[in-house]
Amino acid sequence: MSRKRNVTFDDIAKYTGFSKTTISRYFNAPDSLTLENQETIAKALVDLDYKENKVARILANGKTEFIGVIVPNLKNHYYSEMLNQILQTYERFGYKFLVFIGNDDEKSERQYIQELLAYNIEGLIVLSFTLPSKELADLQIPIVTIEREDKYVCSVNTDNYMGGIQATSLLAKHNCDILIHINSPTAPEIPAYGRIQGFLDICEAKHLKHRIIYKALGNTYEQMQKSLSEILDELDTAYPNQKKGIFISSDTHANVFLNLLMKKYGTLPDDYLIVGFDDSPISREAVIPISTVGQQIDKLAFEAVSLLVEQMNEQKKRKPEPLTEPVHKVITPILLRRETTEKSH
Amino acid sequence: MSRKRNVTFDDIAKYTGFSKTTISRYFNAPDSLTLENQETIAKALVDLDYKENKVARILANGKTEFIGVIVPNLKNHYYSEMLNQILQTYERFGYKFLVFIGNDDEKSERQYIQELLAYNIEGLIVLSFTLPSKELADLQIPIVTIEREDKYVCSVNTDNYMGGIQATSLLAKHNCDILIHINSPTAPEIPAYGRIQGFLDICEAKHLKHRIIYKALGNTYEQMQKSLSEILDELDTAYPNQKKGIFISSDTHANVFLNLLMKKYGTLPDDYLIVGFDDSPISREAVIPISTVGQQIDKLAFEAVSLLVEQMNEQKKRKPEPLTEPVHKVITPILLRRETTEKSH
Repeated sequence: MSRKRNVTFDDIAKYTGFSKTTISRYFNAPDSLTLENQETIAKALVDLDYKENKVARILANGKTEFIGVIVPNLKNHYYSEMLNQILQTYERFGYKFLVFIGNDDEKSERQYIQELLAYNIEGLIVLSFTLPSKELADLQIPIVTIEREDKYVCSVNTDNYMGGIQATSLLAKHNCDILIHINSPTAPEIPAYGRIQGFLDICEAKHLKHRIIYKALGNTYEQMQKSLSEILDELDTAYPNQKKGIFISSDTHANVFLNLLMKKYGTLPDDYLIVGFDDSPISREAVIPISTVGQQIDKLAFEAVSLLVEQMNEQKKRKPEPLTEPVHKVITPILLRRETTEKSH
Repeated sequence: MSRKRNVTFDDIAKYTGFSKTTISRYFNAPDSLTLENQETIAKALVDLDYKENKVARILANGKTEFIGVIVPNLKNHYYSEMLNQILQTYERFGYKFLVFIGNDDEKSERQYIQELLAYNIEGLIVLSFTLPSKELADLQIPIVTIEREDKYVCSVNTDNYMGGIQATSLLAKHNCDILIHINSPTAPEIPAYGRIQGFLDICEAKHLKHRIIYKALGNTYEQMQKSLSEILDELDTAYPNQKKGIFISSDTHANVFLNLLMKKYGTLPDDYLIVGFDDSPISREAVIPISTVGQQIDKLAFEAVSLLVEQMNEQKKRKPEPLTEPVHKVITPILLRRETTEKSH
């Protein structure tokens, strides 16, 4: 494990003809040198094979090419696929990613952010939702959030309202007797609340009989089974022989609901139509492929990194002009019609 | 976006009483100073609030606290959960992770490794399988691989042989007429080959009728459906009214196979028993919970990072004594009996 000899200040001084004091100033207070002299020294660092030591170059110009990423977890397919797509932007932008798992713990997340700042990250992408956007904005570094409360920071989100409209319209087209939306309690400032609003607006505009069931659906498969089994029994009792159009908050939940129906009836009964959300793999791999509203995760990730790169490039200017208002981008979701709405219904 | 004034060599020299030349030597050739003087300066850097700039500290001591990670993808739950568990070791060891997605492209992976080396990573964890372990070993940095060819590097793997024995023994206990293992063609130097060997050894030791079906099962859900549908039709024809114990290479494949049976027969027929591998979420979320051999991903990740940390700590000694032989650790899998073997069968 040989380590290359480091290039010394002496080497750089000899090569450039500057004094060692000048070289030292370049590393410690580059702005005290003229731009021209900075460039001469920067070029010398490259010529002297400093190129193999990015850490040294970073110290010289402050550009770490690091982006910090905080995801709540990687168990949920949505987050693992988002991270997948974020990491792949390396090919396009060259930024490297320092990744932390938040686990819904604000104290840890604050510590991770301090750690990231200590490494001079140039920007931060936040998918976790424990820290308010005000606190993130106060960090005074370029930030983009994805699908979380985003009042004070730039963000990229799915057009959840449009997704709610797509799902509800599909069920409406099948002439359901009642439309039912099942979701965990959701605060209006969360982007995903748009799904609920879209459902409500379509139902009211078209005068459709409808109902929203808010219930904490749980985090484990067993909890979801229990809470959705209770909902299923209640629906069977409340709306017998009525065609029920179910729009449910995620594909994971939709699959649990579908399996409960299969267990109870041996098949998906004709009076149940189901639409999920996300286009997770489970929606395709379910025993009956589940209709769903697909989030364009590749586009969300690409737009998030692009928006961050714009801000980071601005920071590198001599006189940066930071955004005066946070930018919020939305990506249209795509409706996928599969067998839980299109089969024999 | 104010940037703190950097601590200069002047500041450090004044604080320590050393000359600026000595300070410069500390940064450029620390070994030319006595250990005592190195420590005095290191302490000064902390006192002078250098602690907020790890990049500077790294330049001083060469310890980036970075571990590079290369995963083939994050679409496969096995890899996303492994990355999840690797990242969580931050709490225990404090190392930060620079993550790249390999996408099965050796050229890209070589480029990622160069990028990681340029950032002075202290160690590397490789889950992708495109680069031979000989090439990885030649990088001359601490490396641990997980579940891939590992002849020349340290590794942590599931005890795949034991997993094959567990799955096969479970099927044997149910008095199947024939035991069938379905897998993609697998090279003997891959750890997963142990599953096949375990299957064969148990079948031969117990004189059980058995068969291995090697077939490229495909990467997309549609390809898997096609190839497994052909296999199902063939099994139905070859072994009518015989109790078939199916040990299949992964839970993803087991779920596709189960869904094909459900579609064909409306239920899981009594003459089919299924065991998968991995304990992926799909094995629990399937329409009938699938028996499987669970990999202890948390333990695999923890042992991989531990093994790497040992090597990295050795590197930090004045006279490192690198391992003379690669260390290979194995983690025992856990058999999970669920309804595809335990129901009414």
